[in-house]
Amino acid sequence: MSEAYLHPMALVETENIGVGTYVWAFAHIMKDVTIGNNCNIGDHVFIESNVRVGNGVTIKNGVSVWEGVQIDDFSFIGPNVAFTNDRFPRSPRLDDAKSRYGGKSWLSPTIVSEGVSIGANATILCGLTLGKYCVVGAGSVVTRDVPPYRLVYGCPARMNGYVNKRGEVLKQVGDHFVQPVSGKHYLLYNDAEMRELTP
Amino acid sequence: MSEAYLHPMALVETENIGVGTYVWAFAHIMKDVTIGNNCNIGDHVFIESNVRVGNGVTIKNGVSVWEGVQIDDFSFIGPNVAFTNDRFPRSPRLDDAKSRYGGKSWLSPTIVSEGVSIGANATILCGLTLGKYCVVGAGSVVTRDVPPYRLVYGCPARMNGYVNKRGEVLKQVGDHFVQPVSGKHYLLYNDAEMRELTP
Amino acid sequence: MSEAYLHPMALVETENIGVGTYVWAFAHIMKDVTIGNNCNIGDHVFIESNVRVGNGVTIKNGVSVWEGVQIDDFSFIGPNVAFTNDRFPRSPRLDDAKSRYGGKSWLSPTIVSEGVSIGANATILCGLTLGKYCVVGAGSVVTRDVPPYRLVYGCPARMNGYVNKRGEVLKQVGDHFVQPVSGKHYLLYNDAEMRELTP
Repeated sequence: MSEAYLHPMALVETENIGVGTYVWAFAHIMKDVTIGNNCNIGDHVFIESNVRVGNGVTIKNGVSVWEGVQIDDFSFIGPNVAFTNDRFPRSPRLDDAKSRYGGKSWLSPTIVSEGVSIGANATILCGLTLGKYCVVGAGSVVTRDVPPYRLVYGCPARMNGYVNKRGEVLKQVGDHFVQPVSGKHYLLYNDAEMRELTP
Repeated sequence: MSEAYLHPMALVETENIGVGTYVWAFAHIMKDVTIGNNCNIGDHVFIESNVRVGNGVTIKNGVSVWEGVQIDDFSFIGPNVAFTNDRFPRSPRLDDAKSRYGGKSWLSPTIVSEGVSIGANATILCGLTLGKYCVVGAGSVVTRDVPPYRLVYGCPARMNGYVNKRGEVLKQVGDHFVQPVSGKHYLLYNDAEMRELTP
Repeated sequence: MSEAYLHPMALVETENIGVGTYVWAFAHIMKDVTIGNNCNIGDHVFIESNVRVGNGVTIKNGVSVWEGVQIDDFSFIGPNVAFTNDRFPRSPRLDDAKSRYGGKSWLSPTIVSEGVSIGANATILCGLTLGKYCVVGAGSVVTRDVPPYRLVYGCPARMNGYVNKRGEVLKQVGDHFVQPVSGKHYLLYNDAEMRELTP
């Protein structure tokens, strides 16, 4: 496939959609959105102006990506995941709230780093960073930053272990990690890179 | 703007939409719905017949507003918020449940009062009243009435403090409240109105 | 009604939709889907290829039914309920995950048995069976099998009692159950059938 595939029932108002990317039915991509190559954007997805989506990203159905949410390469956003971009939302038409919505100071950004997986129906509060390759369990409510390669879940989401790039849950053994099925060993370098150890 | 703006991909079956109200793409507003002035109705929203939405309301994407849910002026409904209108839902085609769905006795109403904010992906059980200007945290499951000006969150949602009309969290100091940044003082009159105290 | 009713704004790519079934606006039913008779498929629903939906099923708005999810007769799926079909999702374009998505071994099935009710915005992890006529409370996160006729709710969902076919909560009295309003008595046979006792 040499171009993007835009479903005839998708509403796409940007031209910045990469090669090999699919946009499915009833999705709405606003203008001034950039989407990389080889992404899969599901039915009923909405992406707001000024959002940048990386390469190889999967966004399942029913997700709205608001301005201020950055979606890095190869991440997976499950169905009905809810992002936010305002810690104290009020209707901007409310007299007491109007002044707050004059500029963009209310906007609180969120970073979904490379390779992150967010399970179905999770809620991601704003002003947070989801670290590389972390996994958020389905139905979780994320209220704090998640460091790289962690598994978190629950309401609110709590640390429940470590994963590798494949998303497999690892067992901690002393200062390193083991994938129980394959027996492969890993080390987490600088709390930033989970590297497989060669025997 | 002197009229409503209806996106060409919205499906609007009522004529009772107020001046200055926007309805966005893939939204479906049924007949016998009334929406006030200066509202913002997001993509993929559904509003069922007999619902009344006040003035200045914001409904973000992916929300379904069922018959029995009343949305008062200046409220904010976050993305993917789920309303309900039946405490014990069964498929009405099920033989054992059919008799229950003959009339409307199964319908349990919900009131979203003036100025309320409901965070993204929250679930609102039915038969409840969300009091004026209360704030429901993102991802919460609301199972009880919320008094005015309260902040609630969690699954199930619990009281976690007080807010003012702007949605700012207040600190309780004796019998009144202080907004920590501005230093403004407030009193909650009759558990119904949060008034700023003039020094 | 002698045929299915397909809303003009629905996108229906299968011909296997039963008599008396309604499919509403902005819903997308893919090819190789089978839907039984007398179902009600709400706005913004998505049903993926190879899914089979029984007779008399109600699927409310905003639900995506993925391959691997089986929806049996007379079940009720609330609005924005999220199903899943992969325990460890990664974007299939991620190099480390690609091999996993070659076949279908990643696919973990879910069974929604006859007469089940799933409340609004609940999240259903995969590889699970929801037993006949069980009720899942709104906003719950279901992480384990649910036996028949149970009421479960919470995050994660826990057992909180028993229901009858009508969805009414029963009171346990010794070895049988009583519906407090009607006074009817029930016995749960073989943990599989809740039968009314004739006096």
